[in-house]
Amino acid sequence: MTRDNDPQAALRVDLGNRSYDIDIAPGLIGQSRSYADAIRGERVLVVTNETVGPLYVGAVSAALAESHQVDTLVLPDGEQYKTLDTLEKIYDRLLEGSYGRDATIVALGGGVIGDIAGFAAASYQRGIDFVQVPTTLLAQVDSSVGGKTGVNHALGKNMIGAFHQPTRVLADVDVLETLPAREFAAGMAEVIKYGLIRDAAFFDWLEANMDAINARKPELLIEVIRRSCANKAEVVAADERESGQRALLNLGHTYGHALEAELGYGQWLHGEAVAAGMCMAADTARRLGWLDDAQCERIERVIVAANLPVAPPRELERARIRALMGRDKKVEAGTLRLVLMRDIGSAVVTSDYGDTLDATLTRYFDR
Amino acid sequence: MTRDNDPQAALRVDLGNRSYDIDIAPGLIGQSRSYADAIRGERVLVVTNETVGPLYVGAVSAALAESHQVDTLVLPDGEQYKTLDTLEKIYDRLLEGSYGRDATIVALGGGVIGDIAGFAAASYQRGIDFVQVPTTLLAQVDSSVGGKTGVNHALGKNMIGAFHQPTRVLADVDVLETLPAREFAAGMAEVIKYGLIRDAAFFDWLEANMDAINARKPELLIEVIRRSCANKAEVVAADERESGQRALLNLGHTYGHALEAELGYGQWLHGEAVAAGMCMAADTARRLGWLDDAQCERIERVIVAANLPVAPPRELERARIRALMGRDKKVEAGTLRLVLMRDIGSAVVTSDYGDTLDATLTRYFDR
Repeated sequence: MTRDNDPQAALRVDLGNRSYDIDIAPGLIGQSRSYADAIRGERVLVVTNETVGPLYVGAVSAALAESHQVDTLVLPDGEQYKTLDTLEKIYDRLLEGSYGRDATIVALGGGVIGDIAGFAAASYQRGIDFVQVPTTLLAQVDSSVGGKTGVNHALGKNMIGAFHQPTRVLADVDVLETLPAREFAAGMAEVIKYGLIRDAAFFDWLEANMDAINARKPELLIEVIRRSCANKAEVVAADERESGQRALLNLGHTYGHALEAELGYGQWLHGEAVAAGMCMAADTARRLGWLDDAQCERIERVIVAANLPVAPPRELERARIRALMGRDKKVEAGTLRLVLMRDIGSAVVTSDYGDTLDATLTRYFDR
Repeated sequence: MTRDNDPQAALRVDLGNRSYDIDIAPGLIGQSRSYADAIRGERVLVVTNETVGPLYVGAVSAALAESHQVDTLVLPDGEQYKTLDTLEKIYDRLLEGSYGRDATIVALGGGVIGDIAGFAAASYQRGIDFVQVPTTLLAQVDSSVGGKTGVNHALGKNMIGAFHQPTRVLADVDVLETLPAREFAAGMAEVIKYGLIRDAAFFDWLEANMDAINARKPELLIEVIRRSCANKAEVVAADERESGQRALLNLGHTYGHALEAELGYGQWLHGEAVAAGMCMAADTARRLGWLDDAQCERIERVIVAANLPVAPPRELERARIRALMGRDKKVEAGTLRLVLMRDIGSAVVTSDYGDTLDATLTRYFDR
């Protein structure tokens, strides 16, 4: 290893011969040593989007060009482009450029770029390497870690994809300076989620420090990212392919995915839908007696403090939301399973929610 | 295990928790016990094509319907439909039908159906189970075993895909009765390949029994399939993801894929292109002193006896063929590696072929 990043801020995702490091520090993306050992071959294709590309692709390419042959593909920005059509553009570029199996894709962008470039890497010539360079808080704390890649289908989000682990994740906190407020907040939804499902002390810490976090103080951002990634890395290492506890990472997502689908992808940010979805999940858990009113209020206060919505638009139709929830990947033998809190800092996957889900939907929607 | 197929004809592909059986016998596809233990959930989508579907889907569906909820998707027949567009039709059907992660795809057809339905299974909700029911000799001896799945791109064959192992392969020799002669011959190209790369005794046996094999005597077909699959299973178990000896299975394929691409997919059958490609590989090996003239003639005689071509059309342009060969997945650091025989029954992957490849191309093409 030639890298000398702060070992305090480097995390290992332990997956046998697919293990990799998450580096968390300022200034990572422009340093060639950040990429050392993570790229095996000569050729690198940086996949980015038209928003992030102009800001950072110069620094990334310059750092990579010290040891590699680098080309760039700029995709349109937005969840609505996370499609098979956009994926095909990556394949086209790889094939037109005669990229071989020893090529590496560097995904420079938010979750959409990471997911789609990661799936391109998973499926090009049955799998090539890729490095995640997440440029949003959401991607740094969640989507860049764990190997989930894929694209959306008109009938469901992330319905097409693969598990494919990156060879490194570079979480550079400097890039968060330019992140729009709404996107920063969306990332905080997943951060709060880790507290809710498995780390009550982290939830307490977030509750106490939300103002300083919102001011994006670098030392606090490093702690936010480090602790989120540590939680995710532990879950992923224990359950890479989501047969068990990894499903807990979906707290709020079954509700949230339905909201996103019904609102139209790109209208609400993923994190916003997850935030509202976590409040709905808390409501269902409350009806089951697993959370009390005070805990639900505490959850809503933290979500409000993070500038996130605590409820979906009332005018959505509950029968449609319920039907969309039924497309969730956690459906087994026709039965929808939900991730619900049993306390702050604890969650379970359950199909024993009876009619409480219907009661929750009745509360949140007028019709 | 409730199945009582002849254990002599059942083979195990040993891949840890992804291990599976290949069953080889007459009458398998219409027996519900053939599918026992290979399908976990309730719902099954049989993916087939318009040629094979009318012949066998009734028997397969009836056998499956004893324990499962079965639906069928019929795709157009032909390599030219092995595309992302066709793949999307499978995703559409799965999503419109609200298939969950516990659904199983049964791929009923030749290599195209197995590859595309297998890749749909690999990528739908990041991976669901599938069973291979190969209906061509090529698929029974080669493409249904080993977990390679995928689709073609206009710029290259099998350029998009994944490694995804089936939960069972059912090689029913009865279905070969209806196979057109040209397709039967194409399957024999891969059979001969196993002899050439690692089983000299099998090559001798094929040489001695080709007439009876061409007459499709069931006991000979079972032996052809069993020995081919045993060879492939050993290679795959040793090298699931093609980092080493699995590449030997590509004998003739680097040449053959270039021929297929230049002729246009669907003009020559894959096995025909591989047959000509193996003769070209033999020629390159001869120029390196690894085969002698007598061995090359012996190889050509067996290929002729199997009703296969020993050379590509002379009017193809050698510079284009060479460029297409450069798109091969075995390219590393810009260098094309070739699978070449070092004897009958032995092969290596090498980039040390000097100018012998150019000499071979000069022999086979006029310009």
